[in-house]
Amino acid sequence: MGDRVLSDMFAPSRVAVVGATESEGSVGRAIVENLRDDFDGETVPVNPNYDDVFGLDSYADLQSAPDVDLAVVVVPPPYVVDVLRDAGEAGVDDVVVITAGFGETGSEGAARERELQSVADEYDLNLVGPNSLGVISTPVGMNATFGPENALSGSMSFMSQSGAFITAVLDWANDQGIGFRDVVSLGNKAVLDETDFVRAWGDDPDTDVVLGYLEGIEDGGTFIDAAREVTDDTPIVLVKSGRTDAGAQAASSHTGTLAGSDRAYQAGLDQAGVLRVETVQELFDYAQILAGQPMPDSDDVAVVTNAGGPGVMTTDAVGDSDLSMASFTEETLDALSEAMPEEANIYNPIDAIGDADVERFRTALDLALGDDNVGAAVVLSAPTAVIDYDDLAAEVADLQAQYGKPVAAVLMGGERTERAADVLAGQGIPNYFDPARAVASLDALASYREVSERTYQQPTEFDVDRERAREVLGRAEERGDNRLGVEAMDLLSAYGIPTPTSELVDSPADAVAAAQDVDGEVVMKIVSPDILHKSDIGGVKVGVPNEDVYDAYEDLVTRARNYQPDATILGVQVQEMVDLDAGTETIVGMNRDPQFGPLLLFGLGGIFVEVIEDTTFRVAPVTEREAREMTEEIDAAPLLRGARGRDPADVDDVVETIQRLSQLVTDFPAILELDINPLVATPAGVQAIDVRLTVDTDKL
Amino acid sequence: MGDRVLSDMFAPSRVAVVGATESEGSVGRAIVENLRDDFDGETVPVNPNYDDVFGLDSYADLQSAPDVDLAVVVVPPPYVVDVLRDAGEAGVDDVVVITAGFGETGSEGAARERELQSVADEYDLNLVGPNSLGVISTPVGMNATFGPENALSGSMSFMSQSGAFITAVLDWANDQGIGFRDVVSLGNKAVLDETDFVRAWGDDPDTDVVLGYLEGIEDGGTFIDAAREVTDDTPIVLVKSGRTDAGAQAASSHTGTLAGSDRAYQAGLDQAGVLRVETVQELFDYAQILAGQPMPDSDDVAVVTNAGGPGVMTTDAVGDSDLSMASFTEETLDALSEAMPEEANIYNPIDAIGDADVERFRTALDLALGDDNVGAAVVLSAPTAVIDYDDLAAEVADLQAQYGKPVAAVLMGGERTERAADVLAGQGIPNYFDPARAVASLDALASYREVSERTYQQPTEFDVDRERAREVLGRAEERGDNRLGVEAMDLLSAYGIPTPTSELVDSPADAVAAAQDVDGEVVMKIVSPDILHKSDIGGVKVGVPNEDVYDAYEDLVTRARNYQPDATILGVQVQEMVDLDAGTETIVGMNRDPQFGPLLLFGLGGIFVEVIEDTTFRVAPVTEREAREMTEEIDAAPLLRGARGRDPADVDDVVETIQRLSQLVTDFPAILELDINPLVATPAGVQAIDVRLTVDTDKL
Repeated sequence: MGDRVLSDMFAPSRVAVVGATESEGSVGRAIVENLRDDFDGETVPVNPNYDDVFGLDSYADLQSAPDVDLAVVVVPPPYVVDVLRDAGEAGVDDVVVITAGFGETGSEGAARERELQSVADEYDLNLVGPNSLGVISTPVGMNATFGPENALSGSMSFMSQSGAFITAVLDWANDQGIGFRDVVSLGNKAVLDETDFVRAWGDDPDTDVVLGYLEGIEDGGTFIDAAREVTDDTPIVLVKSGRTDAGAQAASSHTGTLAGSDRAYQAGLDQAGVLRVETVQELFDYAQILAGQPMPDSDDVAVVTNAGGPGVMTTDAVGDSDLSMASFTEETLDALSEAMPEEANIYNPIDAIGDADVERFRTALDLALGDDNVGAAVVLSAPTAVIDYDDLAAEVADLQAQYGKPVAAVLMGGERTERAADVLAGQGIPNYFDPARAVASLDALASYREVSERTYQQPTEFDVDRERAREVLGRAEERGDNRLGVEAMDLLSAYGIPTPTSELVDSPADAVAAAQDVDGEVVMKIVSPDILHKSDIGGVKVGVPNEDVYDAYEDLVTRARNYQPDATILGVQVQEMVDLDAGTETIVGMNRDPQFGPLLLFGLGGIFVEVIEDTTFRVAPVTEREAREMTEEIDAAPLLRGARGRDPADVDDVVETIQRLSQLVTDFPAILELDINPLVATPAGVQAIDVRLTVDTDKL
Repeated sequence: MGDRVLSDMFAPSRVAVVGATESEGSVGRAIVENLRDDFDGETVPVNPNYDDVFGLDSYADLQSAPDVDLAVVVVPPPYVVDVLRDAGEAGVDDVVVITAGFGETGSEGAARERELQSVADEYDLNLVGPNSLGVISTPVGMNATFGPENALSGSMSFMSQSGAFITAVLDWANDQGIGFRDVVSLGNKAVLDETDFVRAWGDDPDTDVVLGYLEGIEDGGTFIDAAREVTDDTPIVLVKSGRTDAGAQAASSHTGTLAGSDRAYQAGLDQAGVLRVETVQELFDYAQILAGQPMPDSDDVAVVTNAGGPGVMTTDAVGDSDLSMASFTEETLDALSEAMPEEANIYNPIDAIGDADVERFRTALDLALGDDNVGAAVVLSAPTAVIDYDDLAAEVADLQAQYGKPVAAVLMGGERTERAADVLAGQGIPNYFDPARAVASLDALASYREVSERTYQQPTEFDVDRERAREVLGRAEERGDNRLGVEAMDLLSAYGIPTPTSELVDSPADAVAAAQDVDGEVVMKIVSPDILHKSDIGGVKVGVPNEDVYDAYEDLVTRARNYQPDATILGVQVQEMVDLDAGTETIVGMNRDPQFGPLLLFGLGGIFVEVIEDTTFRVAPVTEREAREMTEEIDAAPLLRGARGRDPADVDDVVETIQRLSQLVTDFPAILELDINPLVATPAGVQAIDVRLTVDTDKL
């Protein structure tokens, strides 16, 4: 679906409730009441059974009602499709289907949902749901949900694939004083999904943060494109649940979402610039500080405290994060030295010691925030007889406003912190009891700065021989087998990935001829789609001198026959020898994810990949930066760059190979999975030694 | 120091405040007021300047006061030592020194602290502090601190190396309704330290959990011994701060504690059975559930909910933890199937769906807790029109009591959860907004079950040749060099660690003779304390046939001379060849930690240790179980056990080598550090190929 304009959905003048009723305990009643209570616009009941609902004129259908901007549908499942037609005929573009009993309930429901999709498509309806709790938009006071709570106003827009989660969050957020701009219960996402709302809120200048709870993403590639653009200006914080095997199973039985691999989600969300979080606490901690505080110019944090022990805990939390403790300038140290008592610690963390009053705290924070080496600050206080938290909060808020650097507060204690927390919240400063949460929140701000500073370069387009690649892939079709092996090395050559000189031969004499084209000894590998692990059956001979090539051919074929008499044997690949010891073995691979498509893998070969899973993933197509990150972020990365006295490998060539593979698998959706293993990286460049792939010949 | 009886400190009948005063804003006044307010016993002011303080008779000194059980000292620093003598003479055993200005303030203070220690020693005083906030014991209403808050009663005893942290925690805990039994501000730990309180609270039947904030542990070995015993019955949960480099630096400037390595702390605390946590939130979450709930019989968790989305998040949290999702019995599934509506999910997590009332919730939880496959449960609810949280809480508390299995609750929402949380707390059940916290808390219970089930076996005592080992170590002294290398392989043999046949020779002719004693080719290594990296200068020759040994000797010596003309050359080690490719190279090492003493390291050799730091640590002496765990918990452990088609190594021999090394470094504190690298592990056993160690010859 194209880009939809959803701003009308959140700022309607007139909302119809189709299925409005006064009937006690009904969803239709709850929605009318919620709208009546707070909505700035007009609420229009639609129900042929009533003349009015709660004193509001009721209409038989949308076509007979006055012009409606948004229709909320609560009629029983069999009637929903008729209502959608009515909406379409009446020129209503935006519809929220509350009614459940669709895709989530089995095959009959699924059929009904397909019908709903087709009518929505016919009339180009922006449809939320079905099986939705509804939508909220606080700027116009619209609570078009059947939940018990409306939201407070704020600048965060919130989507959730779980209606219950919205109910729980609003109940809690209203007590915490946390507000929202728009809230959407996505329901079954028959038409509108997370990508649409990410786009809509990205376009909304008054949404400062997008946050969400998702169990699945419908179309990974489209989501990445949309989110990548939005996160330039607007942070997105998401829980994507079903991360673990157990969780994925639970999510699948909850929503029927087909579980893609969490690696693909992780890679895709990272590439999209989404801050992915794991817990409810992180979701709201991060979203709130992103809504309330500016981004830090640097990762260097100052800690100002009256309590040594909590100061150490805070410093540990900084050590755990991607932030670092700021080093103050000489000027700052001199000024602190002058202003603080002798027992104080003027180095970071600044310990203004237990008898620090608000004035001394202010002085220390003022100096810290004024230091160019400081990007952000944590204000940390234990309760003492000389500190009034309300006063301290006012000073902290004042200084934060003055310097425009992000601040998180840890005014520790119970009730005495409550009013102070409100004062801080007025300036968008969060307050926590646990220093680790304050630091994690500042860390989220810094992570988002990194995202917002990314400039997305398009993936490099290499000059490749697409026709030749197609021809190699076509061999699978000719053969009636969807697996290709070392005989398909040409595929890599066609895409500019270096391979040793190599030839597939089907007779001993041809093998000898092929070997003569190569300097020195050769490697010979049996080629058979039926033999997956060539080495295990002695199907690979390394360092064969020219005079032995003839016999070696016959021996390889004999071994293959003995191993599996009915194996299809295509011949023997005769390859130039590559000195594996001179380089580092790496693996570059791809498999296709149901949501995100081609997922690239990079790792060091052998033991690392198989035993300790030191690998990294990206959704293709990748940019040069993304390909380079892959070579940097595995644990064993230093080995590629020359650790332990090795010669550094030509990493640029590895990076280019990843990009070329990315282009190949993007160009050919027919390639279902592909591994180059090993890709040997030496100081002089890379060489792909072996390849294995699976082709969907129908897609060629 | 030996085991001290500290029970009197926490249950005194009469407490003296030495330095008691009515002077506004003074510490002496604050303590007298705090005692007067709540203490069940008698408060005795001691101050020669007053006849009475707040109407209580004041005495000139402790000797003239009526019999006192505990003296709290707040006099200025120069008078503290005199007060301690007075206490000693008066027969007061227990003293809390509040006064600051000792070790934490520089050399003069440090001298004063040593004097204080010596007087305490002379009179055998149980002394808390100096520089302490004081002590609290709720069973007798004693608040002998100068903090603004007393503690509520409870069964957790709490120690902290930071007084400010206690103040902050009490302020918060009192609002949360969280109570304590004893609270101690450890101050400078001049006499009593964490080990004493761990012992004392371990002996106290009414302390259910010990929790603490520490920046350092004075004597690691003693602490491990004490904590290991205590944790059989009483869980200990600790923050040990200064975990990170930045944090360690901050802790050191805060308390002057010499920073040991965090690896040693981590290993020592693990071995002691302490649950180490990183954040304040974890500290109290874990301590509270340990105090309130029984241990689970198994790690299998049931989740009962009315909300699918939060149910998935909870399942993810279980996936992240060491717990697992319970599989219900057929019987339970049948009963659930009967009792739940059709749309419900009866598999774990049980989704009783949004219209579940308290009765349906109760039924589901009843069936889950009654299932033998279930060890613990999470009750998870979003607010709905049909759920009253107070009623639900009462049912949950009732069922928890009935089944005696641990339960954690996630009744999500704001104020509506408050009374329900109180009801749950009455049964020791915690309630959280974030499901991840509930699961982490249950995980802590399961971890403690594992600790409490450990049976500590004494380390194995192998029959070794201690005299021969001493003799080898003595060579360092003879030579005037504290480094020994491959020539000290005898040290390993003396402790029964297999080594190749090997001889140190100092002439080419002797080298030839030595080589003739060995089957096949030999390895020759230059031996010089001045050449640390033999291989780098070509100082190792592998696979030398007998006929080349003479020349090889001369070549090695020449290379060493060329590399460093003034190097002390002790000769050449002629060693039996060991086929490194036939086995897995491992490294077993030790260095000494200032707090914990000998810290053993185990890892796979080469790349793993140096680049990806796949290593594990234990404080020696280790038991067989601990040594075996070391071979199991590195990431590359499967390689030892035969991953990727390798032959499995003889792991028992590796385990034995770790234990033998443990015995060696425990027997000889003179060994400061030692590395066996590599120790080659093959299916047929292990062999130590090279060794390097540093000896403190003064300790021999």
